Amino acid sequence: MIKRFAELLSEDEVVRVHEVSLEILGEIGLLVRNEKARAMFAKHGCEVDNDTTNVRIPGKLVEEYRKLLPSTFTFKGRDPKFDKTNPDDSPVIVTASSAPNIIDPETGKDRRAVADDIARIAALINELPGHDVFSISTLADDAPEGHYSLSRFYPAIKYCMKPIRGNTPFPPELVEIKKLIEIVSGSMEAYMEHPYITHHYCPVVSPLTMDFDSTEQTMSLVADGFPVYGSIVPNAGLTAPLSLPGALAQGNAEFLALGVLTQMIKPGTPQIYATLPTVADMKSGAYASGAIETGMLHMAHAQMARYYNVPSGGYIGLSNAKVNDAQSGYETGMSAVAGVLGGADMLNLTGLLDGLMTFDFAKVVIDDEIALMLKRITRGMEFSEENLTLDVLKKAGPGGMFLDAPHTLKNMRTMGLFPTVGDRLNRKMWTDAGSMDSNTKAMKKVRAILSKDHPKLISDETDAKIRAHFGDLLMAGELVPMAAG
Amino acid sequence: MIKRFAELLSEDEVVRVHEVSLEILGEIGLLVRNEKARAMFAKHGCEVDNDTTNVRIPGKLVEEYRKLLPSTFTFKGRDPKFDKTNPDDSPVIVTASSAPNIIDPETGKDRRAVADDIARIAALINELPGHDVFSISTLADDAPEGHYSLSRFYPAIKYCMKPIRGNTPFPPELVEIKKLIEIVSGSMEAYMEHPYITHHYCPVVSPLTMDFDSTEQTMSLVADGFPVYGSIVPNAGLTAPLSLPGALAQGNAEFLALGVLTQMIKPGTPQIYATLPTVADMKSGAYASGAIETGMLHMAHAQMARYYNVPSGGYIGLSNAKVNDAQSGYETGMSAVAGVLGGADMLNLTGLLDGLMTFDFAKVVIDDEIALMLKRITRGMEFSEENLTLDVLKKAGPGGMFLDAPHTLKNMRTMGLFPTVGDRLNRKMWTDAGSMDSNTKAMKKVRAILSKDHPKLISDETDAKIRAHFGDLLMAGELVPMAAG
Repeated sequence: MIKRFAELLSEDEVVRVHEVSLEILGEIGLLVRNEKARAMFAKHGCEVDNDTTNVRIPGKLVEEYRKLLPSTFTFKGRDPKFDKTNPDDSPVIVTASSAPNIIDPETGKDRRAVADDIARIAALINELPGHDVFSISTLADDAPEGHYSLSRFYPAIKYCMKPIRGNTPFPPELVEIKKLIEIVSGSMEAYMEHPYITHHYCPVVSPLTMDFDSTEQTMSLVADGFPVYGSIVPNAGLTAPLSLPGALAQGNAEFLALGVLTQMIKPGTPQIYATLPTVADMKSGAYASGAIETGMLHMAHAQMARYYNVPSGGYIGLSNAKVNDAQSGYETGMSAVAGVLGGADMLNLTGLLDGLMTFDFAKVVIDDEIALMLKRITRGMEFSEENLTLDVLKKAGPGGMFLDAPHTLKNMRTMGLFPTVGDRLNRKMWTDAGSMDSNTKAMKKVRAILSKDHPKLISDETDAKIRAHFGDLLMAGELVPMAAG
Repeated sequence: MIKRFAELLSEDEVVRVHEVSLEILGEIGLLVRNEKARAMFAKHGCEVDNDTTNVRIPGKLVEEYRKLLPSTFTFKGRDPKFDKTNPDDSPVIVTASSAPNIIDPETGKDRRAVADDIARIAALINELPGHDVFSISTLADDAPEGHYSLSRFYPAIKYCMKPIRGNTPFPPELVEIKKLIEIVSGSMEAYMEHPYITHHYCPVVSPLTMDFDSTEQTMSLVADGFPVYGSIVPNAGLTAPLSLPGALAQGNAEFLALGVLTQMIKPGTPQIYATLPTVADMKSGAYASGAIETGMLHMAHAQMARYYNVPSGGYIGLSNAKVNDAQSGYETGMSAVAGVLGGADMLNLTGLLDGLMTFDFAKVVIDDEIALMLKRITRGMEFSEENLTLDVLKKAGPGGMFLDAPHTLKNMRTMGLFPTVGDRLNRKMWTDAGSMDSNTKAMKKVRAILSKDHPKLISDETDAKIRAHFGDLLMAGELVPMAAG
C-alpha cells in the first residue's frame, strides 16, 4: 500500500481553501435553476432568492451537512464478486465515458458511435483485468431522439457483469432505465437489493450554477436510495479563475454545495468527491484535459477530499492525443500516477482519445495495462521481515546469484507485473516478431477477445421481455464478433 | 513546490531498512577488488580479508561516515548560469546515457552511434529547455580502441555549455579527459574553479561487490576534488533478492558502502544517492528497466535518501519500447512522475529506447516535454491569497465568465504549460494539419533545431590545440547539419 500520499498543499493551505469555499458559498452563493433544489436549500436554512435563483449556504450549514458524508462509496456489480469500494479497493479503474465518436476497429477511421459498439466495448471491459467499473464509453447515435440512454444501458447490461455507471441527460430517459433494470431484475425491489447501476450527472455547471435536469434527477435518485453522484468540471480561464488555487477553491465550493444538497435530502447518502478540473489552453482555447495541470488539480482535490474524509476521484488520465502515440501514453500515464500517488480513489481513466471526443479499442487495452501498473503501485512494497530477505542475501553472499534461490522460484510469478501490451524483447527479436508498436499489439488483443463468442449475460426470456416492452425505441445493441486476425 | 512526497515505506520501515543495511555491511560485507579501497576501509577500522577481498564495515563506522555526506550536490555548467543544485533545483533533468546504438535520424534505422552523433545530440540538449545536464547519450563506436571516452567528451564540450556528465571505463581514458579539459580551460587550476564535468561510475557490481577500475577512478577523483558520484544498479531476481524490500535493503547497503568510502577519502565530498534498481522479467529474463517496479524502487530509495539527508535520483523513466509509441510514453511518464512525487531530485530520464540500448532524437524531444511537465508539477500550486482569487470570483459571480478578466489576461502566458510536441487540436484540424503523431512532430522539431547553424563553443585556437595534442586518437565529432525539412 501507499503509506503517505503526495501533497501539493500544506495543511494550512487545505484549511484556507476550505475557508474560502465557505466564503464563496456563504457570500457569493450559487444560481440554483431547479426550484425543488432551492426549496430544499431554503427548508434547511439557506438564504434563497427565487427571483435571481441565488442560494447562499451559511458556513455552519455546510459544516453540519458535509460531516454527514460517508467515508466510503461502493460500486456494485450485477455479480457481487465485482463490487468495488472506495477507498478500500483503490484505485478503482473506470472507463472514461460518453464519447460521441469511435475509431472503427475495422477501418481505423473515426465515425459516430452506435449501440452495437457499446456491446463490443461492454464485452471487452468485462474481460479486461485492470477494469473495475464500466462507465458507458460512448453515445449511441443510432438511437431515436429522446431515447438515447436506453440503447446505451441495454448493451452494457447485456454484455458486462461489472458495475455499470451511466448518465441520463433528461428525466424521461431515467424513467426508461428504471423500467429496464426492473425487467432485468424481475422487480424494482429485487434490483434495489444490489443496485448495479451507479447514476452519474454533472448538476453543477461552473461557475457556481446548478442546472435544472441533472439536479432534478440527482435529487430524485438520492431520495429513492439509488446510487448516484456528480462530477465537478471547472475549466480554469473560462469557467473558473486562471490559477490553480482559485480553480481549486471554486471547484471545492461546488463539490460542497452538491454534497450538502445530497445530505439535506437523505443524510448518509454515499458520494464521491469527483472532479474533472482543467486549465484552458490560453493560446488555442483548447479543452486541455491531457494537460499536467489537470493531474495536479486532481491531486489537490484528492487532498481536500481527505480533509473531508470522503472518497475522491474523477476523469484522471485523459489525453488530447488523436492516436495511440507517445503523447497518449505519457498524458494518460503521468496524470494517472499523479492522481494515485495524490490519493485519488477512483479514476475514469480509459479508452478515450481527443479529450473526451473519441473512443478507441486499442486505447482501452493499453490503458488496462496502465491500470494494472497503477494497481501494482498501490500494492506497494509488501514490506515484511521475510521480504527483507536477509537470509536469502546471506546465503547468496557477495557476488552471489539469486536466479535459482528457492525464494526467487517462490515469488517469480507474482512479484513483478508481466505486460501484455508493453514489449520487452530486444530490438532484433522485436523486429523478427513484426516490429509491432503498442497500438498494433493492443489491436491484436482486442481482436483476440472480440472474435470470441460472448454469450449474452441476460436470459433469452428477459431479453424478449425487454424487446417487447421497448419495441422500436431500443436498438439491437448486438455484439457483432470481429473477424479473427 | 511539492509540500509532501509520496511514500511507499512507513517511518518504521525506513529505520528497519537502514538497520538491515547495517547488518548486511557488518555481517555479510562486500567483496572489494581494488586493494587501495581495501586499504582505505582497513585504515578506518573495517574488517578486511585481503585473501577473499571481503570487507565488513561496522555499523558505527557507517553511521559516523554517512553523516558526513553533504545535503546538496551541484552540477556545474561551463557557463555558470547553467549550474543546477539538488535538491534546490529539483527535478534536475539529465539525459540517460551511454547507449551503444542510435536511430539514424535520416534513415530511421538503428546503427552503432559515432562521435558525430554526439555533436548533434550535444547541440540539441544545449537548446532544449527541459534539460539541465548532458550525460553523454551514446558511445562513439568509431573511436580507436582504448580511447573511446575522448571522442565522447570532445563533441559534448564543443557543442554544449550545460553541465556534462560522463564515464571513463578505464583509468587511461580519464587521463585523456583531464588533458582535454585542461586544454579547454587553459590550465587545470582554471578548470577546477568551476569544474563542469561530473564524472560518473558504477563501482558497485551487485550484489555487494566493488570492482577494480571504477573504484580506482572514483577514489582518485574524490581525493583530487573532482565532482564524481556512482550509481547503484541491483536487478531483483538476478543480482538481488526478488522482493522489493530485499532489493531495496541490498541497494541501500551498496549505496552506504560507496558513500562511506568517499567520506573516508575526503569528508564532505558531495554525493548523490543514485540508483537504477530493476526487477528482472522472470518470464523472459529481460532487463525490464521500463517496469513500474523500477519507479517504485526509485521512490523507496528516494525515501531512504531523505532519511540520510542526501540528494537522490537515478535512471528514472527508461522504457523498453523500441519506437515512440504509447509504451514509450507511459513507461517514461509514469516512472518519472512516481520518482518526482516520491522525492527523487535528479532524473537520467531522456532519449533512450530499448532499455539503455538505443538513442533516438525524437525521443529526447518528447522527453523534454515530459521534463517540462515534471517541472510544472514541482512548481506546484503557487498558493497565495492573491491566487485564491476570491475577488476575481466575486466580480465574475455565479454563471460569470473569466476569459476577459484582468487576472486571466495577466496570467495567461505563464500559468499553464504550452506543449510543443503534445497536440491539442481537434481531430478535424489535426487531420488537416497532416495527422502527425508525437514521433513525427518531435522529428520536425529535431530537424528545425539541427538544420540551424550551431557554432562551436570553443575557440578555433583551443580546438587546434586539442587536435594537435590528440591527433588521430580523436574523431572529428563535427556537427553535420541536417537538411531542412
